[in-house]
Amino acid sequence: MFFGQSVGTKPCKTLKQVFQLVEEKSVDYGIVPAENSLEGSVNQTYDLLLETSLGISGEVKVRVIHCLLAIPGTKIEDLRIVYSHPQALAQCAGFLEKLDVEAIPAYDTAGSAKMLTEKQFSKAGAIASERSAELYGLEVLRKNIEDFPENFTRFFVLAQTDALPTGKDRTSIVFATAHTPGSLHNALSQLSSRQINLTKIESRPIRGMPWKYNFFVDFEGHQRDPMVSEAINALRNSTTMLRVLGSYPRAD
Amino acid sequence: MFFGQSVGTKPCKTLKQVFQLVEEKSVDYGIVPAENSLEGSVNQTYDLLLETSLGISGEVKVRVIHCLLAIPGTKIEDLRIVYSHPQALAQCAGFLEKLDVEAIPAYDTAGSAKMLTEKQFSKAGAIASERSAELYGLEVLRKNIEDFPENFTRFFVLAQTDALPTGKDRTSIVFATAHTPGSLHNALSQLSSRQINLTKIESRPIRGMPWKYNFFVDFEGHQRDPMVSEAINALRNSTTMLRVLGSYPRAD
Repeated sequence: MFFGQSVGTKPCKTLKQVFQLVEEKSVDYGIVPAENSLEGSVNQTYDLLLETSLGISGEVKVRVIHCLLAIPGTKIEDLRIVYSHPQALAQCAGFLEKLDVEAIPAYDTAGSAKMLTEKQFSKAGAIASERSAELYGLEVLRKNIEDFPENFTRFFVLAQTDALPTGKDRTSIVFATAHTPGSLHNALSQLSSRQINLTKIESRPIRGMPWKYNFFVDFEGHQRDPMVSEAINALRNSTTMLRVLGSYPRAD
Repeated sequence: MFFGQSVGTKPCKTLKQVFQLVEEKSVDYGIVPAENSLEGSVNQTYDLLLETSLGISGEVKVRVIHCLLAIPGTKIEDLRIVYSHPQALAQCAGFLEKLDVEAIPAYDTAGSAKMLTEKQFSKAGAIASERSAELYGLEVLRKNIEDFPENFTRFFVLAQTDALPTGKDRTSIVFATAHTPGSLHNALSQLSSRQINLTKIESRPIRGMPWKYNFFVDFEGHQRDPMVSEAINALRNSTTMLRVLGSYPRAD
């Protein structure tokens, strides 16, 4: 576990609320999903990172195991509808197609499990974790129903404080470039010319400026490393906006 | 209009079905959303582009105007729930927050309008187009409810045939790079060194290879232009996989 000891937790209904609780110092850390290895980035997290003063002080990678849950006694062949979060439905699309059920999006995986119990739906299932089955008294009809077993979600740990260098770190930044040929290439050259390994690049549209983008870039190293610090300074000169979101130990 | 004359249309329930109908030659063209200027890329379209033999033979940009619809006679202050596609809900998040209603995701905007009519929901609204209000006999309670007026969606036109050069074209490609420092930068240098203007870059995870990505890149020019053709050939040598998805007239 990231925190190394048991800590109190506070569930939030929305990602925005997670950011808010850490900003208000109601909690010390917030955990938000950044990307899934099958479905890609969680756009809302990236959009919220742009608006917050919080930093990324850690990352956690979790193996995702999806289960098909239903009211105890339900037969799998009786299911007509399956509820879950759109990403979970997408990750089990092949399984659901064979099952020949209607997939209906819900706000989250655990919430769809809870709903089955509350409404005692007998012809509906939910895709959620084994833990949700325990919590809401549901039966696990099938386990590991994801289409690809290499299913991981990477989470960011949000905090008001920075993480110190460990020698095995990652740095996340966001920048925008001028709309001229080669501007993204020029920005990235500040990393590659210093042998800094880019591990992810994600573009997000800039609101109110159609077809212009912010680039969220992850690379190896800590912002206090001399080479990384030099690259960030050089990047400031070859971009129109740049913010360091944080440096933190890599979860590899 | 892109097709310049009236053409027959065939609605599809899923993006996958649009690709299938064009692949089977049941229709000549398919139209799929590629990106929205507020919410970003439509991931499923990009994932399907990777699997298809079809090409992109055109693009269309459409201004999005969202309306709040309800059963005629409904008062806006009586609404408790608003249904729509998750992207539409996200684009009207500020409006919905002020309205203090529960936002519930549905498969599509028109479908949520249709549901209101079918179920005669009196305390529920739907976010959809003015056209949907006409189609399903609903009242437009508010128009232009999107949080940012600069709201456009860009669509790809899929076909079995290529579009010829017009002198004002765009080319879409997808490639993967080796997982070494500077590999993305090296690939992009094939464009920038030839003064080719990159207009979009989107990364999508490679299924079954956590934390590795395919890059979908759009740039100005047609694959038959000598400079573009040279860049594509050079890119083949600096990437581990490359496919040209199509060249087509720019909709600017």
